[in-house]
Amino acid sequence: MANYKSIIAYDGTDFQGFQRLGGDRRTVQGVFEDALRRLGWEGGSLRAAGRTDAGVHARGQVVDYDLAWKHDPALLTLALNAHLPNDVAVRATDLANPGFHPRFSAKRRRYRYTLISAPQRDPLRERYAWRIWPAPDPGEMAAAAGLLLGERDFGALGRSPIPGGHTVRAVFQATWRAETEALVFEIEGNAFLYRMVRRLVALMLEVGSARMPIGEFGAVLAHPGQPWVGKIAPARGLCLEAVVYDE
Amino acid sequence: MANYKSIIAYDGTDFQGFQRLGGDRRTVQGVFEDALRRLGWEGGSLRAAGRTDAGVHARGQVVDYDLAWKHDPALLTLALNAHLPNDVAVRATDLANPGFHPRFSAKRRRYRYTLISAPQRDPLRERYAWRIWPAPDPGEMAAAAGLLLGERDFGALGRSPIPGGHTVRAVFQATWRAETEALVFEIEGNAFLYRMVRRLVALMLEVGSARMPIGEFGAVLAHPGQPWVGKIAPARGLCLEAVVYDE
Repeated sequence: MANYKSIIAYDGTDFQGFQRLGGDRRTVQGVFEDALRRLGWEGGSLRAAGRTDAGVHARGQVVDYDLAWKHDPALLTLALNAHLPNDVAVRATDLANPGFHPRFSAKRRRYRYTLISAPQRDPLRERYAWRIWPAPDPGEMAAAAGLLLGERDFGALGRSPIPGGHTVRAVFQATWRAETEALVFEIEGNAFLYRMVRRLVALMLEVGSARMPIGEFGAVLAHPGQPWVGKIAPARGLCLEAVVYDE
Repeated sequence: MANYKSIIAYDGTDFQGFQRLGGDRRTVQGVFEDALRRLGWEGGSLRAAGRTDAGVHARGQVVDYDLAWKHDPALLTLALNAHLPNDVAVRATDLANPGFHPRFSAKRRRYRYTLISAPQRDPLRERYAWRIWPAPDPGEMAAAAGLLLGERDFGALGRSPIPGGHTVRAVFQATWRAETEALVFEIEGNAFLYRMVRRLVALMLEVGSARMPIGEFGAVLAHPGQPWVGKIAPARGLCLEAVVYDE
């Protein structure tokens, strides 16, 4: 028996989030545990870096689990992929270092949110993006993102995933990049509050669509005790890109 | 009553192709006609630039139909989109010129085929791409594409969509473009034979994967009377990007 960590990717569209739920609700954890069981896993030990919400995608989710596996970890990747459905795949598997915890050992998380601009629905892009029309102002969006850098109490934008946990988080990078008829937000931080990235995207969009002056955006950030009540950007635009550990 | 043309986009994954079929088989034509009927269309006149196969996507399919519509064509786009499912959308609608036919008036068609290179399945990209590992040689792929330019009998690579029709086609542009862990093929021609683009992609991949010398690829093109029998690239990587008309 050894502890393995796998980097996994999934299309969140047809999942009710990462975390296993009761009944016949389809979750990433549920299908991953089913695949592990096919390899002799006896349950009880699957942990993940983050519990993504229903509909959120991942390219770099990290899970760990104890398994009796006699072969190379690379073969474990292949074996798991043979048992996983098309919308989940293991990208790589390794032995975990002693004491490794996918969530508590993580130093940084990176998320991406994709906005597209088009006057009509776009069936080939909306599975992984939120469509906004008219297009927001990229300069205003970038200015708002710039205000996110640094460590602060983000209490206005969400609660801790740990009940009663504090709401101070550090943002190391936050940028909007213009692509063809699209704006892509990349944010990296030590950790994020529940739905914080989707709230931030919706809030920056208020600024980029000239519905909120940037000073007001700064004021929301400056008052962690006053939760911002407003739209949350839809899950389908969000992707957990990577979880970074000290090695 | 007037004749309208619409540019439409669709995610082909959940369709059994464009053309209406019997029974309860879901087709793009079927759902489009359902939407038209909601606007008072009485049937009989829907025509398309090309009948894409099951699973093939489109960003620039063109259809035309006769409809009694009292408002601006832009409002017809909105009305149709309100009645179409998420995986089909009208991008633009206009009055068609007298004598317009979406297929016979078309001067050029442009298709795109996306290959991705990754050692494991990629749930976030394989809906719209074919995964190949190890990665093919981009230089060899480009050299093969270069041989496609010009007018010739492509009889080795498919049959005419018209029974008994000739198999001479002109290719105006054919390029492979390298992207992140991906190779994107763009081809523009006056028209294409049935499954020609998917056969060409599979054949170029033989060259790019060093299973076929490029001379042999040239020989296949040079012998239209000897149909190439080999793999056909899967539908999910193919997208009808645009149909071009003289205006």
